[in-house]
Parts: sequence; structure tokens; C-alpha cells
Amino acid sequence: MAKEIERKYLVKGDAWRKLAQGVHYRQGYLNSAKERTVRIRTVGEKAVITVKGPTIGVTRMEFEYSIPFSDCVTMLEKLAEQPIIEKTRYKIPMGSFTWEIDEFFGVNAGLIVAEIELPSEDTPFEKPDWIGEEVSGDPRYFNSNLVAHPFSTWGK
Amino acid sequence: MAKEIERKYLVKGDAWRKLAQGVHYRQGYLNSAKERTVRIRTVGEKAVITVKGPTIGVTRMEFEYSIPFSDCVTMLEKLAEQPIIEKTRYKIPMGSFTWEIDEFFGVNAGLIVAEIELPSEDTPFEKPDWIGEEVSGDPRYFNSNLVAHPFSTWGK
Repeated sequence: MAKEIERKYLVKGDAWRKLAQGVHYRQGYLNSAKERTVRIRTVGEKAVITVKGPTIGVTRMEFEYSIPFSDCVTMLEKLAEQPIIEKTRYKIPMGSFTWEIDEFFGVNAGLIVAEIELPSEDTPFEKPDWIGEEVSGDPRYFNSNLVAHPFSTWGK
Repeated sequence: MAKEIERKYLVKGDAWRKLAQGVHYRQGYLNSAKERTVRIRTVGEKAVITVKGPTIGVTRMEFEYSIPFSDCVTMLEKLAEQPIIEKTRYKIPMGSFTWEIDEFFGVNAGLIVAEIELPSEDTPFEKPDWIGEEVSGDPRYFNSNLVAHPFSTWGK
């Protein structure tokens, strides 16, 4: 079990693209309730199932287990809430931490967000020029909410 | 991934008790929707997470993975839908098959059901004297429904 503290930002411009190679993710939810989420995800050629507790401040409980890739694909196609999320993740090390930039496709095309995982809620960290507005507390940006309310439908 | 075909019956009398040693189960749900269930369960000293698809006839998709026992206990206490289910399971081999008898405790005390897993929907099998009424198609007896609607509240 791990506790994660994450801060999330919108991304400006394209300067970040040359800093990392992207890896393709396909992910879906077996539960997307705010009390507990169960996510299945392929990461390149691997697959995991992840259980998370409710977000309290910027902290939540997390449990993650490896599963067979073919099981994950079957569950994504047959059992997960639809539509599933497709994105490319770029990991960019900076100082002691790593920025994770997610560029979304499909029904969430146009959305690009950056996340940083921190050891405590008040840890200082460097913000590069391509980091825009903070959206950590905005539930519209939770991946679990991008299924029922994709980016392409916002403001409609 | 396995497909399971199960038939479920009420149990009469106590003659089955001398046929097996029971093992204690604690289980809870991270999702109990009819479209997909996610169950976590301790079985004696072990623990598993199980994803099941919707029941179609008496058949459903099932995926099961071992997880650390201590993770499972934390998830049962902190994240699962409450109340969790506590039962003792007795496995009784008979012919080519095995009867699984579940004796429930806590909010489901008084409920005892027997299940048999079969290779196809029309497979013949032996029914001992302590097998009562079939309840395979009755959703009240789904373990996932015994959380929100425990046996002790039926008919109230």
C-alpha cells in the first residue's frame, strides 16, 4: 500500500515534447465512484490493476498489482466502463522529482495535463515554463471522470 | 480468464457438517454492480482479488489474482462496501464434482447455501439428501447482494 500526493497542472506549448519518449496507455475503470476506484491499465506491453481510496486533500490510499496483459485487454474491451481512456505518457525527470505529462486521444483529444508526485503536501519543487494553471482540486480532470464526461463534451 | 457455471441450493439439516472441515472467509466488494463486480477475499491465510462480468444465464466471465493478505485486510476494513461478509466454507467432493457449502455469520447468520460448479449448463450431477430448493436464479442470494440486503433483513 502506498499513499500518493499528486499535484496536477495544465500544459502550455510544445517545449516538453523533446524531453522524453512517450509510452502508450489504455485504461478503463471497473469502478469510478469517489469512495473507491478500481482501474485496469496497459502500459506499453505490461498491465496492472489499481485500487485507490477517496481523495482526502491531495492524498489517497493506493494498491497496485501486475496482471496478465491479455486479461487486461479482455477486461478493457468487455467489462470496463466505456469509453476507455487512451493516452501517451511522457516522463520528464526534473530535480528530485519526475513530471508525468499525459496527452489524451479519442474523446479526450486536446487535453494535456502534467502531474508531479511529492513526498508531502508542502514539498517545494521547480515549475518549468510549460506548466500552466493548477487543476489538482478540480474533479473534471480526474481520469475516472474523463470516462463519463470526456474533455470533448466540456462546455457543451 | 475462466467461465464459471454454478448452480446454487438451500441446505437442509446438518448431515453435511461431518463431511468436511470448514475454512474461514472474509470478503467485501469494491464494486457490486450487476455489470461487473470486484471482490476482495481472505481465504484462511491467503487473499485474492476477483473481477467478474455480468451473469448471463448461469455463466459469467471471471478473473482472479493473488494479493498480499495485509493489503486485503486493509482494503476490507477501509475501502470495501460495508458490512463485509463473513462465512465458513466447507468443500465436499461428490462424484466428479465438489459441493461448496457456505455458512454465513454476522448480518447474514442463519443462511446456509450449497453451490456446485459444472462444465456445462446441462451436465447431470448427484444431489445428496441435504440439498434443498434451487436458488440459482434468485439475485437475493448473490453474495454481492448480501451486503446491501443481508439475510437478517429479508421479509422485514
